[in-house]
Amino acid sequence: MFLRNAWYVAASIEEVTDKPLARTLLNEPIVLFRDRNGVCAALEDRCCHRGAPLSLGWQGERGIVCGYHGLEFDGAGACVHIPGNKGEIPERLRQRTRVRSYPVFEKDAFVWIWMGEPTIADPSQIIDCPPDDPIKAPRVHGMIHIKASYIYLLENLMDLSHLSFLHKNSIGSSADDSANASMDINPTKTGVKFLRLMRNATPSNASKQRHNFQGFVDRWSEFEFVAPSCIVQWSGAVNAGEYDKGVREGGESNRIVHTITPETDKTCHYFFAMSGGYGGAEATRKLAFQVFREDADMIEQQQIRLDGYDQSRLVDIPSDVARVQMNRYLNRRIEEESRMASNAAE
Amino acid sequence: MFLRNAWYVAASIEEVTDKPLARTLLNEPIVLFRDRNGVCAALEDRCCHRGAPLSLGWQGERGIVCGYHGLEFDGAGACVHIPGNKGEIPERLRQRTRVRSYPVFEKDAFVWIWMGEPTIADPSQIIDCPPDDPIKAPRVHGMIHIKASYIYLLENLMDLSHLSFLHKNSIGSSADDSANASMDINPTKTGVKFLRLMRNATPSNASKQRHNFQGFVDRWSEFEFVAPSCIVQWSGAVNAGEYDKGVREGGESNRIVHTITPETDKTCHYFFAMSGGYGGAEATRKLAFQVFREDADMIEQQQIRLDGYDQSRLVDIPSDVARVQMNRYLNRRIEEESRMASNAAE
Amino acid sequence: MFLRNAWYVAASIEEVTDKPLARTLLNEPIVLFRDRNGVCAALEDRCCHRGAPLSLGWQGERGIVCGYHGLEFDGAGACVHIPGNKGEIPERLRQRTRVRSYPVFEKDAFVWIWMGEPTIADPSQIIDCPPDDPIKAPRVHGMIHIKASYIYLLENLMDLSHLSFLHKNSIGSSADDSANASMDINPTKTGVKFLRLMRNATPSNASKQRHNFQGFVDRWSEFEFVAPSCIVQWSGAVNAGEYDKGVREGGESNRIVHTITPETDKTCHYFFAMSGGYGGAEATRKLAFQVFREDADMIEQQQIRLDGYDQSRLVDIPSDVARVQMNRYLNRRIEEESRMASNAAE
Repeated sequence: MFLRNAWYVAASIEEVTDKPLARTLLNEPIVLFRDRNGVCAALEDRCCHRGAPLSLGWQGERGIVCGYHGLEFDGAGACVHIPGNKGEIPERLRQRTRVRSYPVFEKDAFVWIWMGEPTIADPSQIIDCPPDDPIKAPRVHGMIHIKASYIYLLENLMDLSHLSFLHKNSIGSSADDSANASMDINPTKTGVKFLRLMRNATPSNASKQRHNFQGFVDRWSEFEFVAPSCIVQWSGAVNAGEYDKGVREGGESNRIVHTITPETDKTCHYFFAMSGGYGGAEATRKLAFQVFREDADMIEQQQIRLDGYDQSRLVDIPSDVARVQMNRYLNRRIEEESRMASNAAE
Repeated sequence: MFLRNAWYVAASIEEVTDKPLARTLLNEPIVLFRDRNGVCAALEDRCCHRGAPLSLGWQGERGIVCGYHGLEFDGAGACVHIPGNKGEIPERLRQRTRVRSYPVFEKDAFVWIWMGEPTIADPSQIIDCPPDDPIKAPRVHGMIHIKASYIYLLENLMDLSHLSFLHKNSIGSSADDSANASMDINPTKTGVKFLRLMRNATPSNASKQRHNFQGFVDRWSEFEFVAPSCIVQWSGAVNAGEYDKGVREGGESNRIVHTITPETDKTCHYFFAMSGGYGGAEATRKLAFQVFREDADMIEQQQIRLDGYDQSRLVDIPSDVARVQMNRYLNRRIEEESRMASNAAE
Repeated sequence: MFLRNAWYVAASIEEVTDKPLARTLLNEPIVLFRDRNGVCAALEDRCCHRGAPLSLGWQGERGIVCGYHGLEFDGAGACVHIPGNKGEIPERLRQRTRVRSYPVFEKDAFVWIWMGEPTIADPSQIIDCPPDDPIKAPRVHGMIHIKASYIYLLENLMDLSHLSFLHKNSIGSSADDSANASMDINPTKTGVKFLRLMRNATPSNASKQRHNFQGFVDRWSEFEFVAPSCIVQWSGAVNAGEYDKGVREGGESNRIVHTITPETDKTCHYFFAMSGGYGGAEATRKLAFQVFREDADMIEQQQIRLDGYDQSRLVDIPSDVARVQMNRYLNRRIEEESRMASNAAE
């Protein structure tokens, strides 16, 4: 079950060109393309005529042309040309030849798509990506395809105790520092937020290589889950003792948006945009792909182990508090939406 | 559901040798082989003893030897040798050790197989391949394995409007010529036949490269569907104005048999034999594989999109008339056969 | 259905190191590892916390550390460390964080595992591997993964008539010698045993290459099936006429333990240990892998042919007697165990 009335990232912005892009989102085959005016659109990737994927077609005069028998659709999903049809398309055909269209919105690094009821799609709800400061903090973005449920990746991000183990050689702090971290968790209107703080901690290997910390650091992680599948991160480190004095600059500071789009029940696209102090765009990109691939490898195996397994047998431990709140909030939202859909159907 | 009382191509003739060939046809595992007299046979590819594929065995003195425990079967499926059995095979064993045998018939380029009730197999029903004139019109044949239902390939061939899109760079005419084509559709005893005619049309790229058309052409396509899975094609082009004067020679003329054998519900073997004016056997073969692979790529994706999809949601357009008649005819034949089988079983 | 109260080989002894080894046995994901004292252990390969495979973790101070969030388990499956938990693990958590542990026992070339009720695991029931005489008869062992049910491999070994066909170019005798072999079959407390004897037989190609037989030989095969999945083999050849005089030395003599562990219903691990006269360890190993791979290739295809097939349609032939007794004995044991489990549950 997915939350449908929500914005998800469909693609990185540079992926959507005049050449159609096929992508499965929330189990639905979708084609993304730009028309001749550069306007981005998303349609069901299945021609209404014989079911061919529209993504095998090409940009036409008024939209996208099916590469099999030549039907053309505009960005709203209306069929605007049927080869062999003389004159105007008759009303009966016009109604039946429509393919589903999805609201899309381009913002920052991404093309966002609304998978639910189109009339209530409101782009002002879309979260902001971190700013792109080409000199001080260039923004990089990317995507990793993962053969696991998007839930497992959200859960990964909402329990940072994994850093000391899964990422122990890169961004992880020591297990002791991690065990002693303070956690401050608060509900928000759209999810849940936590501040995780390690005072007098050993800097991570990645931090030591990139910053001139002489000794211990204060290390903080602010993570905000925004349902259904975004996590907005601000994390950093300053010299030990500085955090409580309000210092946030001068050390490490990273702003990351993690936004995960289900492909199927058991696979997802992990999009991220980050800007920060990892030593330039290339170093930042390289570290991101290294660390996020470690996450992906783990949750792909977790997916295999939990497939068909009764998860009520799993056990929560102290580090799970924020994760559990995230799960509960998201499940409640999905249930609400499902209940409203049932009511509407009655 | 397949029509069972019908001839299908099992293999190209050169594929069946003294080394057994395994092939799944209509969901059934079949072994094709020649005995020591060169006689071709087709048996269920599953030894009656322990289920080993007979295709892993070898030609024996009287038929095919199972490579696991050595049972030997003749071309009619009778077990003629059981290692360890002293003397003659007892009647009880003789009856139980039989494996299913299928009527086969070699004709032109292919080995044909009858998948239904053997007693009514009549080789005179097998269609003719185009003649092989090594000098003027050499015949080439081949096979493409396709991960899609054979139905989608039949449908492809019965709606030629796709040529202007899927094959626009090779054999397709212009979209306008195609939209203005006349269609003359007639039922036959074994299926349905159409004549598609484009007068004063631009020749296709393939045609221009191979023939000396100075300007426009009359382009015709006679396609006869012969149930369950053959399409006999005669198509060509002459200088504009000549077609109505009865001219058929001097330009382009191609005779093709398309004959498609289901492997499973969702895969098939696409056999074809063609002779014509594509500039010699090698050029003809190359063009055939190029064009038919374009079809295969499309319908493999169509199969994915239609898998589990309610096809009543698809919409017919004007170019679908012959295709729809083909579908109806084939479905009626399959239903009739199924009804007769039910009656016989009662 | 598998016999659960039984010892199976989990791994060759050198496979189990301080680096965890993941292996699926009887459909269950299992991790094998050694703790810092070198003691071997087997646990369910699924962390009780979030389901991550423990095999992605590492050796810890007291057992194995989960590589995701750092929980540590000892060899008995008790959780001995939970990161973030202050002080002792509370009783409630202690009980719930346990993962299943399996009795293991190292013997000769293999690590054996008990897949049933742990309290009745008795290592004295484990069969002996052939002795390892580095000079005269070095022992080699190995494993082949097979995409087929372990039953088909047991059946293969209990009907040696296949040697003349599947292994005709290596260890097989002539088909005539095989057809005339005498079979003496007897039940045992743990299975069934047969002696297969070919007097005045032609030596196999493998035998001829390795031994100085001048002419015909007496060739014997003693095979004992020990339920659920071991076959203890002693086979050999002496000059014709010597067998009945009690001679067993001076010719060919091989002692092999075949022990097959189901991975899933349709895949298995084929472990073997053999010592004998195949001309040194390397030649023995090479011949073993060659011959056993021939078996594997055949039964993998047999698996495909019998998947979903009604096996009551298969026919037994004279060479099947020992195989059939093996099947009956094993099925009876599995039914008994299943009945006892039902009774215990009531």
